[in-house]
Amino acid sequence: MQDTSKSPDAAMAFSTAERTSLYRTIFSRRDVRSQFRPDPIPDDVLGRVLLAAHHAPSVGFMQPWNFIVIRGEAKKRQIQALFTEANEEAARQFDDERAAAYRKLKLAGILDAPVNLCITCNHDRAGPVVLGRTHVKETDLYSTVCAVQNLWLAARAEGIGIGWVSILDTSALKAALGLPDHVTPVAYLCVGYVTEFLDRPELQAKGWEKRLPLDELIMFEQWQGNKEGDPLLEAVREAQARLAEDYLAVVPDGKTETG
Amino acid sequence: MQDTSKSPDAAMAFSTAERTSLYRTIFSRRDVRSQFRPDPIPDDVLGRVLLAAHHAPSVGFMQPWNFIVIRGEAKKRQIQALFTEANEEAARQFDDERAAAYRKLKLAGILDAPVNLCITCNHDRAGPVVLGRTHVKETDLYSTVCAVQNLWLAARAEGIGIGWVSILDTSALKAALGLPDHVTPVAYLCVGYVTEFLDRPELQAKGWEKRLPLDELIMFEQWQGNKEGDPLLEAVREAQARLAEDYLAVVPDGKTETG
Repeated sequence: MQDTSKSPDAAMAFSTAERTSLYRTIFSRRDVRSQFRPDPIPDDVLGRVLLAAHHAPSVGFMQPWNFIVIRGEAKKRQIQALFTEANEEAARQFDDERAAAYRKLKLAGILDAPVNLCITCNHDRAGPVVLGRTHVKETDLYSTVCAVQNLWLAARAEGIGIGWVSILDTSALKAALGLPDHVTPVAYLCVGYVTEFLDRPELQAKGWEKRLPLDELIMFEQWQGNKEGDPLLEAVREAQARLAEDYLAVVPDGKTETG
Repeated sequence: MQDTSKSPDAAMAFSTAERTSLYRTIFSRRDVRSQFRPDPIPDDVLGRVLLAAHHAPSVGFMQPWNFIVIRGEAKKRQIQALFTEANEEAARQFDDERAAAYRKLKLAGILDAPVNLCITCNHDRAGPVVLGRTHVKETDLYSTVCAVQNLWLAARAEGIGIGWVSILDTSALKAALGLPDHVTPVAYLCVGYVTEFLDRPELQAKGWEKRLPLDELIMFEQWQGNKEGDPLLEAVREAQARLAEDYLAVVPDGKTETG
């Protein structure tokens, strides 16, 4: 061990301002459904956001993803029709009261967003045996989701909203996009500039679900392993309290440094 | 449409310095296996990183994740034994030449990292019918992966490395952590400060796989839909070239503004 009076991370961690930027992105990212503007996305901006997606981690460096960029009205209308059908099926699965609330929610901005983007996973990208994928076959899907989340955060920093439309029948979506059997459509995204990013997730603001307290989701050493006195839990409660106050304050002194 | 001479994103996008910080995080994030330091992670730092994970998007705001924090030597040794067994099974799946190369790679830092973290998905978190999960049941797993990626990026900005260990038998891992049937262990992560973050992904540096050109992974309107003349492809090639030169230059003028 080297002798150092500094925090062990001093050499590798980013500045307070840089860390604050990242946390700001993470905490202000939203799943956008109702606030899309029709303005086109410049190619250099969309290109950067896609490059962020491409630099996600992937199992065995497999990079299993493709990005299908949809800008034409015809294809959007075709997907919108699939969504409408699936969404009606979905509404019928809730009991009466919940179904009424469900039908009032706008859940997709397929036609409003200037760009739709389907991010797919090609299970055959790297041959039959992939390093790291020998025991959990779903890891290539997980890699693809990491790409989605990178893209989502980069988009937020660029002022672009993303809405993930998951209420679609997979077979119908595959047929509409001509995907071969060995390719799974992981995410169908609506992408566009927005009129605003909501302060809180829309389903929280509308009372559909509550934000869970993080400290109740943490366990130690094993499932249900709970050490109530663990100082990590107190640290988490403090971070939550700071975030509730101001998300720029989650990194101490972050607010002052970034103005 | 409002009349504005500014870019449509001006109000919502972050400053060049802030965007550059995010891209820096994304492009310099690594899957760490060999560079862990034993220094403990302060609770406030680990708490912040977990809070970033907790603010991932989730289907129907389901927040299906739990975080099992493992710091004890006994549990780590138990998981390390599972990894050793699975890794030997994995090596045998490659042909001779590839298997020899495989055996030379260090693929997990379970005992080196001060903290191990299992991020799980509780499929029953929000009852039998979940908004947005009616047609694709895997979406709760996808939400959990978004939490993993948020955590990975926050950790990078804090100077903390993450290594995702996927070479584990799921049943054995569930038994070791006492997970009930309705909970899936999505990611088993090694977490700790590092001696360095490598310039490039380790599997790329060691010649296991190559980075794919992003422009070849982009399609238009449908699978294999290719418009060679689409200006997005040229923009992507330019962004790739800037990144190859200097990742702080991906946002134009980013380098000058952040110094």
